[in-house]
Order: sequence, then C-alpha cells, then structure tokens
Amino acid sequence: MAAAQLTTDRLADKHRSTLDQALDTIRTRAYWSPYPEHPKAYGEGGSLDAAAGLDAYKALLDTRFELDQPGTDDWTGAEVSPYGPALGVTYPHADIDVLLPAMRAGMGAWRDAGPETRALVCLEILARISARTHEFAHAVMHTSGQAFMMAFQAGGPHAQDRGLEAVAYAYAEQTRTPAGRADWSKPQGKREPLELSKEFTPVARGIALMIGCNTFPTWNGYPGLFASLATGNPVLVKPHPRAVLPLALTVRVAREVLAEAGFDPNLVALAAERPGEGIAKTLAVRPEIRIIDYTGSTAFGDWLEANARQAQVYTEKAGVNTVVVDSTDDYKGMLSNLAFSLSLYSGQMCTTPQNLLIPREGITTDQGPKSYDEVVADLAGAVGGLLGDDARANALLGALVNPDVKARLEAAAGLGEVALASREVANPDFPQAVVRTPVIVKLDGSKPDAEAAYLSECFGPVSFAVSVDSTADALELLRRTVREKGAMTVGAYTTSAETERAVEEVCLEESAQLSLNLTGGVYVNQTAAFSDFHGSGGNPAANAALCDGAFVSNRFRVVEVRRQA
Amino acid sequence: MAAAQLTTDRLADKHRSTLDQALDTIRTRAYWSPYPEHPKAYGEGGSLDAAAGLDAYKALLDTRFELDQPGTDDWTGAEVSPYGPALGVTYPHADIDVLLPAMRAGMGAWRDAGPETRALVCLEILARISARTHEFAHAVMHTSGQAFMMAFQAGGPHAQDRGLEAVAYAYAEQTRTPAGRADWSKPQGKREPLELSKEFTPVARGIALMIGCNTFPTWNGYPGLFASLATGNPVLVKPHPRAVLPLALTVRVAREVLAEAGFDPNLVALAAERPGEGIAKTLAVRPEIRIIDYTGSTAFGDWLEANARQAQVYTEKAGVNTVVVDSTDDYKGMLSNLAFSLSLYSGQMCTTPQNLLIPREGITTDQGPKSYDEVVADLAGAVGGLLGDDARANALLGALVNPDVKARLEAAAGLGEVALASREVANPDFPQAVVRTPVIVKLDGSKPDAEAAYLSECFGPVSFAVSVDSTADALELLRRTVREKGAMTVGAYTTSAETERAVEEVCLEESAQLSLNLTGGVYVNQTAAFSDFHGSGGNPAANAALCDGAFVSNRFRVVEVRRQA
Repeated sequence: MAAAQLTTDRLADKHRSTLDQALDTIRTRAYWSPYPEHPKAYGEGGSLDAAAGLDAYKALLDTRFELDQPGTDDWTGAEVSPYGPALGVTYPHADIDVLLPAMRAGMGAWRDAGPETRALVCLEILARISARTHEFAHAVMHTSGQAFMMAFQAGGPHAQDRGLEAVAYAYAEQTRTPAGRADWSKPQGKREPLELSKEFTPVARGIALMIGCNTFPTWNGYPGLFASLATGNPVLVKPHPRAVLPLALTVRVAREVLAEAGFDPNLVALAAERPGEGIAKTLAVRPEIRIIDYTGSTAFGDWLEANARQAQVYTEKAGVNTVVVDSTDDYKGMLSNLAFSLSLYSGQMCTTPQNLLIPREGITTDQGPKSYDEVVADLAGAVGGLLGDDARANALLGALVNPDVKARLEAAAGLGEVALASREVANPDFPQAVVRTPVIVKLDGSKPDAEAAYLSECFGPVSFAVSVDSTADALELLRRTVREKGAMTVGAYTTSAETERAVEEVCLEESAQLSLNLTGGVYVNQTAAFSDFHGSGGNPAANAALCDGAFVSNRFRVVEVRRQA
Repeated sequence: MAAAQLTTDRLADKHRSTLDQALDTIRTRAYWSPYPEHPKAYGEGGSLDAAAGLDAYKALLDTRFELDQPGTDDWTGAEVSPYGPALGVTYPHADIDVLLPAMRAGMGAWRDAGPETRALVCLEILARISARTHEFAHAVMHTSGQAFMMAFQAGGPHAQDRGLEAVAYAYAEQTRTPAGRADWSKPQGKREPLELSKEFTPVARGIALMIGCNTFPTWNGYPGLFASLATGNPVLVKPHPRAVLPLALTVRVAREVLAEAGFDPNLVALAAERPGEGIAKTLAVRPEIRIIDYTGSTAFGDWLEANARQAQVYTEKAGVNTVVVDSTDDYKGMLSNLAFSLSLYSGQMCTTPQNLLIPREGITTDQGPKSYDEVVADLAGAVGGLLGDDARANALLGALVNPDVKARLEAAAGLGEVALASREVANPDFPQAVVRTPVIVKLDGSKPDAEAAYLSECFGPVSFAVSVDSTADALELLRRTVREKGAMTVGAYTTSAETERAVEEVCLEESAQLSLNLTGGVYVNQTAAFSDFHGSGGNPAANAALCDGAFVSNRFRVVEVRRQA
C-alpha cells in the first residue's frame, strides 16, 4: 500500500479539537455544531457553494456511479425523484461472496490504528461530506421528497452532527481502558508483590450492516455507520432502493478518505440491490455480519431482532407519537407550534405527532376556555394559515415520498369527521411532485371502533384529534399507546404543575422522550445532536437511542493480554 | 414509610470515597480492593471473625430462612453440601403473581433517588456482606464444594469486588448526562436564540432476573445483581437449587439495607424453587422481567437468548479453554503454574484450562529441548507433586460439586492414554466429600476421532494434552476452538516474539482474553476486578464481559424532559 497522504499527525491537526469539543458537548448537552446550517456559509475553503453543489448533483444523473468495489457483477438502480424525474443512476451490484471477504481484509490494520486514528479518519470523512453539503442536499431532496431547505439541513449538517456524535461516543467508550501497557502490582504481605503488565485492545465484532431508510437516508444512517466504523468494524451500506444516491456518495467519500489515510477502502462498501431482490434479508443472517443498524417498518425490524441472532441489532421502527393537550398560557404559540410540527415534511418524520389527546370538555387557555371542537378548529385554522401560501407550503411540506403515503392520506379521511381536509399543492418547479397538506381527523377516544385508527401508526400527513374524558384519561391512553405501540416523541401542554408531574411520570415509567409546552421555534419532532436523545430505546418504537453509551459499547469488545512483569 | 435511618449524607460519609476509588481504578486498571483477602483481617469494626462466622453459619442450618417477602406460598430447600451434610435450610417459595407486582411498587422512589444514592446503598449492602465474609465463606463452601480458603476469598472479597466494580460502571454510565437541568441555547443570527431547559433521568428497564450458578453463586451473581440494582431495577434472585444459601443471605442483607435507607425492601427478592420446578424458564419469559443475567450451560443460555426476547440477556456459558505450549525460558515455573491452574477447585472453574496444545516434536526450554512425551510427563509430575500431600490436596481441590462431574472424570480416562490418573483423596474433616485429583489424557490432534473429546467442554478436573504438528497448527486449532466453542481464557508459553505476536493476533481476531508466560503466582484462571476482564463477550463462551460499559449501559435508558426556557 502506498504511503498515506493523510498521516495521523495531519488528521490530528485538522480534527482533534473538533473531537474534543464533541466529547465535551455530549457531557454538557449544550448547543454546538461544527457544520454550518446556512446554505450561504458554503463556498469557501474548498466547500461547494449552491451553484457548484447543484452542478455536482446534476453531473451524477444518468451515469454509472463507480466505486471500484471488489465483486461487482452487475449495475442496478431505479431511483425516481418524488419530485418527478428519474435519477438514471446505476450502482455496482455486489457478489457478496466476493465483497464480504474483501471487506474483512483491512480489519487488522484498522484495529491496530487505534481509537484516536479511527475517530480522526471518521472526522475527515464527515468534513468532506460537509464540504459537499449542497450536493448531498439535492441527492437527499430527490430521494426522500424533502423540501430543499430541509434536505439541506437535516440531510446535511444535522446528519453530520449525528455522525460526529456517534464517533465521539465511540471514542470515549474505547478509551475507558489505558492505551499502551498498564502495570498491575498486588501486595503479598512480606513476600514479593504479584506483578503483571496488561494491554487492552478494543477489537471489532465483524462486518456491520447499515440498512438505510427512504425518508432520512443520511440522518438515520450516519449514527450506525460511524459508530461501527469508529469502533473498528467494516461497514456494508445497504440503502433503501429509493434512496441510494446520498449513501452511495457517502460510501465514495469514505472509501477515498480511507485510502488516502493508508487503510483499505473496502472497509466501507455499498450493497445496492436489484428491484425486488430483498438483499437485506440475505445479508442480515450471514455469519460475517455481526452488527445491524436498521430504520424502517416494525415488521422487518422485529424480523431482524428475531432472526439475525449472530448480530447486535439496533432498530428504529414504527411508533405512535402523542401530544396531550391539557391547558396552556400561550394558546396562539401552542397552535402555531403544533401546526408547524404536523406540516413539516408532510408529517413523514418518525417523530411527527399523530394523536392529539384533547379533553372532551375542553381546555383552559390564556384566551379563555376552549372546547374540544374549538381547539380542533383553531388548530385546523393554524395549519391552514401556515400552508395558505403555496410557496411556503411547498417549502415546508416537500413531496410525498411514495404512493403508500398518498394512499394512507386518502384513506384517513374516511376514518372519522374531517376537521381539516388535505389539499393538493402545485409545485411550479416540479409539476409531477405529489404535494399534500395534512389532514386532521376527529376521533372519539371512548369509542372502541376508533382505537384501530389511533392505535396504529399512520405514517404521513395524518393526525387524529382524539377526544378523551379528562386529562387523566389522556394520560392513561398515552401510557397504553407508548407501552403497546411505542413512541419516538411525546408532547404535552399544561399549566398545571400536577399534570406536568403526572405526564412526566408516565414518560419516565414508559421510557418516552417528552417535550413540554413548546410554543416557540423548537418543535417536538426535532432533536439536536450532542444534546437531545432521539428515541429512548426503552419502548417498542426503537431498541436504541441516538446516541448514548449503549449505542456504541457493544460494537466492540476489549481483549486483554497480560504478561508476567 | 418510616424515616430512613440511613440518610444519603450518612451513606456518602461512609462510602463516597470508596466509590471514587473504584471509579478511578476501573480507568487505571491498577490493583485495588477495599475488601480484605485475609481471614484474620476480620473481627474488628463489627465484622465477624472466624469463630463468629462459623457460629453464624451453623445457626442457619436446619431452619426456615425468613425473608418476609410478599406472596410466600410454601417453603422449599434441599441443599446437600458437597462435603456431605444436608444443610436443612428451607426458603420462601414465591407466588410470582404476587411477588412480581410487589417488586415493582418501589421502583419510582428508587428511580427518584438518583444514581449516587443508589450506588451508595449498594456499597452499604456490600459492606455488610463484607463484614460477614466468614459466614458467607461457609455458605459458599458447603454449596459449591470449594475448599474453605477459596470459598472465603472468591466467594467473599473477590465477589464483593466484582459487585463494587459493577456499581462503579453503573454510576459512571448513568452520570454521563448532567444531573438537574441543563440549559440549551441555539443562536439564531440576529433573532433571539432558541432556548430550552433539559432534564435527563436514568430510568430502569423493569425487574431484573439473576439466575445463579452452582459453583460460584456470589462471584458470578454479584455483577449482574448490583449492575441491575444500581441502575434502578428491582432484582429477583433465582439461585441454583444446590447453591441457595449464599444468595439468600445476600438478599436478606440487601432487603435490610434498602429498608433502613427508606426504600422498599421488595426491590430485591429471592425466588427459591421446588425440586424439578424449573422456575427460571417460567420467569425468564414473564413480561415484567426485562433483564436477565445467567451463568451456566450453553443449552439454557442459548435458550434464554432465543426466547427471553422481552429482556436484555447477559449470559456466561460453556467454553473450551486452551493453553498453547511453544517454548519457555522457565520450564519449572511453567509446569508449576499450569499444575496449580489444573488443580484449583478440581478444575471446576469456567476459566480452567482444558486443552494443552503441545507440538509433537517437542518444545525448547531453559532446560534443553523437551519432547511432547516429556512435557506431558513432567506436567503430570508437577501435578502429582503439588497434590502429593493430602492436606494440601484438600485445601486446593475442594470437593466435586456434583455427581455429573465425577461421572465425566471417570469417563475421561477412556478417551485416550492416561498421562496422570486421578486419585481419590480422603478428607478427614468430611469423610463423605468426593475429592479427586485431575486426570491428564493424551490425545493426538491429527486424529479426527479425538476431536469430539477436545472440542467439547469437559467441565471438571480433566485436561487433554493434545499433540499438534507445530505451533502454527496449534494456533489454527486455538482459533477454531475459540470461534466454534468459545473460551473464557487462553494461555500461551513462548520465547519467540513472532509466536507471541501470532497468538495475540488469534486472540484479538477471535476475541479471547490471553495470559502470556505465567510462571509465578498469577494463574490463567484467575482475574482481578477493576483490572482484568472476565470473558470478552465476543466469542461463544459469553455474550458479556465482567465488567465493562456494555455490561451496564443497556440496563437503563435515559428519558429527557425538555421545556421552553
């Protein structure tokens, strides 16, 4: 192998202070990010500005995406943008009996490099991805259907933050034992002490499989990818067939950086699949695969947990997110905050609220008592107002990611009384985009036949305004929903200290992340890396949280070699 | 509930510095223990001396062991000492439909107490157990068959060390997020920053089930018990039916301390079972059980991992421990070190070497070349010399823990040429004890029909001297053994830097803990808490290591409550 262009010293000069800041921030949980959120911040220091990013994206279309991976036996790809155009990109299809052994070949050198070098290489990969955020933004937009600004931020800096957070946790976890040799001396009374020299090496588990999702290919993919790579494991990236490009770009950058740093590029590889091939199921039970990260349906997540027994399996699955509406001293703020949460990316976030539990007899507010019907009508009005302007609606909603979401949205109107009908929004730039505003459906929480609706995840721009007998009743339903169906987020609005304590108690007991009385510019469906946990890993919606010690600590093992001193 | 006698302040005065020292030592991996190893160190400051400990033990015999647990529907117990006498102790048998809900009742207060108070309460429990080490030693001796000195040390201070180590890891892991509220402020250019107040609470998963083993009820049981309790989970202790007493004593002490500190004593309870009841299988799949710690057979460990899907499952199962003998510059030291390792507790440790891989053409030593036959004969001589005196033999061997071990020992002599025959040793204090020296059987590693013997765990005082073509051949067999059968320990003797590197590489790749060239007073089958890992969690012998971050980090989840600032 040629001499590394990227030496450890050079990498440390560039990235050690960023790593230190990340290590500090995961302890303080303060706000911090090294990756700019504003599109105009790019264009200096080698990063692509808006125009260059768009050009770079366009240059990818209708081409073969070369990766120079071992075992390529075909080319495949059929992505069509939710905004209309086919991407026309084809990717290498791998003969896994060739690719998997090739991925293992570089493991020894990657292990011997140690936790710091691995972290620094990961930070270089993230820095190069960051420099191409504009290019990634278009790739995310045209695979997920996110509006450009969201694709830019959530698919760019916020995803990179989550990757860096995972690297920081992985580094912290692997450096809990001393680097180099540690002396051990046990007194023996008057006899000579017993003495040993001990050496602790973090070792990888094996190849990690990261199974990407359609809606957030980078944001949901980077934590597992970087946690596994930073702990010494090769990573095979299996993207969702409708969202390959952002992860193929990621794999390409990772392979470039690994090679420049003197490591085997095959430590990161892509597993694109032919339509209907279902390669995830085959890969998941291969003996070489020892770690799996997955975001997607409960059915396949449960299948992985039950069947991929040779691997550590980290899953984020479906859940039913709930907001308890008890009372507020900022009625307008509450309505506009909720309206935004329901609208963002057409409700296609795993964190979007679905069920709004509102007492049948109404709530108290700073604008006087409001009946259940008034709250629902006012919320419908707030959503209608927010999305009344088509340009703003397009910028917030993005496009429906696939026909299943559209079908669910259309069916939802038949589930109860429609408080706010969904409307079609035309997108002048992309006439084929399917853009829809959310529907709000009223359901009676005391009627058993409504349960089937509000106790299932209805992924997409569908919310249920569920009338309940009382706030106590709402809390019981919240508890049952989290326990049986899981939740990535819970929200609550209350001015009562007692109710606040009660909803906290439910969330502590059922392991759900709670946002209280959000009325400003932070939304229940958004989390910030280094500070907020995404999911809890303690209810059926996910078996892991992004990101904590448990997310990284079992991706490697520590092998001790002890010698007579 | 009555006012707590043990306030947090009082507990902090007594134990905070011990906790800090433990936290420091798990990072430095130096030697340290707060619990004295020498029997004569006890008797001051409220601890029981030898005579008082024996009296306390004797007072337990032939009585009902009262615990005042909810749901007791019967009394059960049939322990017979491997040294002969029946213990005659009966324990409460629980109606689990009553006991399990009662165990959950105190969870909220235990959670609200926070990580520090929970750690300090655990340290008080350990301190009281420590004070009664002499009493526990007899209980361990007469359930496990360990000789008194080993029961005293491994069942006493070493087990307490492992418990404290787990508490330290649990505390460190739970305090990675700030205590109290953390402020978060995100700049918004010229606009007001976004501000939130965030609160992070470690929450328990649910009831933890600790399934104890016959041979090391406290040493193997304390890590899981204290890791779960310190992370907020109630712990149901299900002892091996032949080794109930040490864990029943532990449960009693824990319940006393919890009550004195103002917590619900039902946070720790005992599940004794009727003969043949098989209660572990029933308990393991109860929805209330969210964590399981298990030490025992591979068959039941695999069953737990496959079936107790609602729980985090930590298992230590069977393995085949190997020593590679390549060369040595201290032939005598090697032989005496190995002889001790094979003899200690009649080889009934999960860490005892089983297969000694020796090149057919012999090895180089400081005493000249030694053929395979010479090495085996000299090792047989060393074991024979070590155990030639009956008093010393009894003190080292202890008794065979059960008839299965005796049957395996007797069958082993038929597997190949016997290099050292097992002999019966009379125990003058306990004429009924079954005391046996180890057998060493020669096997030809090139003959496929020998594989069935050396590639299975033969738990007990049985070792195989396996002849191999070369050291390279030995390393291949080592790799295959660890990969297919697992290993808690690997040893190697070599004077070659190249061979040392090669055996290290196998252990790093296959995730096995390696001891090199031990010729003094440290043995491959012994590990020291705070410094050595017990198992790696990365090969089939165990899915967890004692003790690391991964052992504790998934026993709780962190719930975040965030509020508009």
